Amino acid sequence: MHINEERLWNRINELGEIGRSENGGLNRFSFTDEERQAKELIKKYMAEAGLSVREDEIGNVFGKMDGKNPNGKTVLIGSHIDTVLNGGKFDGAVGVLSGIEVLQTLNEKGITTENPLEVVAFTDEEGARFSTGLLGSEAYIGDLTYNDLADNTDNNGISIAEAMINQGYDPTNLASVKADANSIKCYLEVHIEQGKVLESKNVPVGLVTGIAGLRWLKIKINGEAGHAGTTPMALRKDPLAAAVEIIHRVEQLAKEQEQTVMTVGQFIVNPGGINVIPSNVEFTIDIRDLSEALLDQLVTQINNMTHNICAKREVTLEVENLHSVSGVDCSAEVYQSIQTTIEDKGIEVVKLPSGAIHDAMVIGKITDIGMIFLRTKDGISHTSEEWCEKEDVSMGAQVLLGSVIKLAANSFVQHG
Amino acid sequence: MHINEERLWNRINELGEIGRSENGGLNRFSFTDEERQAKELIKKYMAEAGLSVREDEIGNVFGKMDGKNPNGKTVLIGSHIDTVLNGGKFDGAVGVLSGIEVLQTLNEKGITTENPLEVVAFTDEEGARFSTGLLGSEAYIGDLTYNDLADNTDNNGISIAEAMINQGYDPTNLASVKADANSIKCYLEVHIEQGKVLESKNVPVGLVTGIAGLRWLKIKINGEAGHAGTTPMALRKDPLAAAVEIIHRVEQLAKEQEQTVMTVGQFIVNPGGINVIPSNVEFTIDIRDLSEALLDQLVTQINNMTHNICAKREVTLEVENLHSVSGVDCSAEVYQSIQTTIEDKGIEVVKLPSGAIHDAMVIGKITDIGMIFLRTKDGISHTSEEWCEKEDVSMGAQVLLGSVIKLAANSFVQHG
Repeated sequence: MHINEERLWNRINELGEIGRSENGGLNRFSFTDEERQAKELIKKYMAEAGLSVREDEIGNVFGKMDGKNPNGKTVLIGSHIDTVLNGGKFDGAVGVLSGIEVLQTLNEKGITTENPLEVVAFTDEEGARFSTGLLGSEAYIGDLTYNDLADNTDNNGISIAEAMINQGYDPTNLASVKADANSIKCYLEVHIEQGKVLESKNVPVGLVTGIAGLRWLKIKINGEAGHAGTTPMALRKDPLAAAVEIIHRVEQLAKEQEQTVMTVGQFIVNPGGINVIPSNVEFTIDIRDLSEALLDQLVTQINNMTHNICAKREVTLEVENLHSVSGVDCSAEVYQSIQTTIEDKGIEVVKLPSGAIHDAMVIGKITDIGMIFLRTKDGISHTSEEWCEKEDVSMGAQVLLGSVIKLAANSFVQHG
Repeated sequence: MHINEERLWNRINELGEIGRSENGGLNRFSFTDEERQAKELIKKYMAEAGLSVREDEIGNVFGKMDGKNPNGKTVLIGSHIDTVLNGGKFDGAVGVLSGIEVLQTLNEKGITTENPLEVVAFTDEEGARFSTGLLGSEAYIGDLTYNDLADNTDNNGISIAEAMINQGYDPTNLASVKADANSIKCYLEVHIEQGKVLESKNVPVGLVTGIAGLRWLKIKINGEAGHAGTTPMALRKDPLAAAVEIIHRVEQLAKEQEQTVMTVGQFIVNPGGINVIPSNVEFTIDIRDLSEALLDQLVTQINNMTHNICAKREVTLEVENLHSVSGVDCSAEVYQSIQTTIEDKGIEVVKLPSGAIHDAMVIGKITDIGMIFLRTKDGISHTSEEWCEKEDVSMGAQVLLGSVIKLAANSFVQHG
């Protein structure tokens, strides 16, 4: 059984015109007219696929197909259709459209699965407008409050709640959005990899093992400014020299692990004169791994190592925990169904963690999850250059179809 | 024989009121009314010391005392009286005032040396107004041209030449400023250390071995930006990781030398997002040592090391030579006269290079030089907190007196 490659590709391109800016990037921020236009198009596709369409009070759009078993738990498939500033047409959209394509294919073949199937486009995964993100999925699992909507504002001072009211939603009715976790069997998401692993392995799709958790640290080091010419090396308390020793060790520490990644993306030096030993520096460390225990252990190691280096160099240290997100593992049954499908197609099974955050991470708090990654040209995303080959998009939907058929055939809601 | 400690200290404080800003720092930029006021005060002190006073066409102020031998070469003593923005009252001023004090002491004791003695306050050593510096000493050795004066402007677009005309100088008459090198025996300069070596050794004065040359390098590294979460360590081309490896090696390389200092004072990271592997970084290296040969060798070593690290990490490298200044050694006879004087006073002889640039470096191109450093509180200079103890200033002038007496007793101009 094959999905309709042309239809899927055409929909990606049609949706990929909505919100297009002058420079070619897409701007579909939450609760804007562009996002509304995109949702209406998604609803049209869902109707074409023969699904029952609904939209909830946070703007999540659902298309449902009943199963044979009226008590069957739903196999949910989804992603998002909002974009970052000047984003691309695959990130998010490809997951929602692949889900619709899979259900439309089953419908056209006259196949009804045992379990109900449902596709969802979650609201505001990217958080480009309100610096939040994951709004729709968090509301769906009941983790979003009215205060979250009232307290966060965009650059014009408009709160999420106000923006919702302007688009006809009721921000006080989040209770109606919350899903019955017991009614869901699992959640599947197709997403672009946003990295180069699949490209380097030369495979179209990848099997996601889990979504990495993260820790963000800010390290501030105060030393002693001095004249570059008149301060012998032995008399220096150079915070930059301490920082580079630390960062070099951070990189080594990351490389000693199996899958951990660590990144220093910000590095600020004061006062910044060519002939002045810096008085203070600050930098950030982004640490990601699937294992919460390993993340905690690494943060402790970095703290100790940083402390020792600064003590040895007689500079003072401040470590701030900026941000922490727990990771989630993909569950065995969903993972297995994807793996078997990939193997059946004769494709090498490349297993990789997701280093980026996705709606699946949130939904993973209430049900089993699985993810299929698509090869991403040069690993580039979040720009208009973001690209997936048509054949790879098609293969992703094909693997999704195979996985859904397996998962929707054998589960029943248990009544007490 | 003792210099007059009180008189010297009072003059430092009196001169240290001219150009005082609201925050306590001194602003005496070249060719301003504040600098003119300071020069007039210096001329008054020179007259009180019994010297013949003159000012040349770049504004260098001289006070001369004849020697017994009409053919004797002049022992020149000097420094500067201009300041940086919000500078201190010792940097420069202490050298000029110590010179005047030494000549006044000799005069009061009725001592005439064999050789003539001369004190000079060189114009614009700091370069605070026109971003140049060393104007007076460069004109004195004949290294300054009219174009230098016409081409360099201050923040208001006023050229040095215009500023000179406004103060009554003739910028086209630099030829009259140039000294007859054959008439000068040597040049001595007392200056604050602007570092912590003497403080850490607990001695009031130090014997300068030479003025370090310097090389300024700018290193630009281009890598590949990427998502911090989705790019495994092994697939990264992280320019910041390359930079920290290089900078860590630079520090080690400096520490392996005897006196070399190396400083990274600027470090810029793009794009600078916490969760973005940087696309490119740039940083500077300031390298100083007395030995030109060693400086050249170290620059070659840094180039090779940097090249190897960048090649290994598959990032591209650009090394720019921003600036290069040749160092100068203090000459044996002057050095020896200072050393003997310090030893005679029972003070430990601490030998150290000058990492900062001074007028002595310029004058060293035409005659023998020697420098005496004064202990500087916490190594701080170029701020209103710059400080030397009264006793240390007095000891510096006392060592200068002893050295001058030795140097002015035994040299004759050779006539062919």
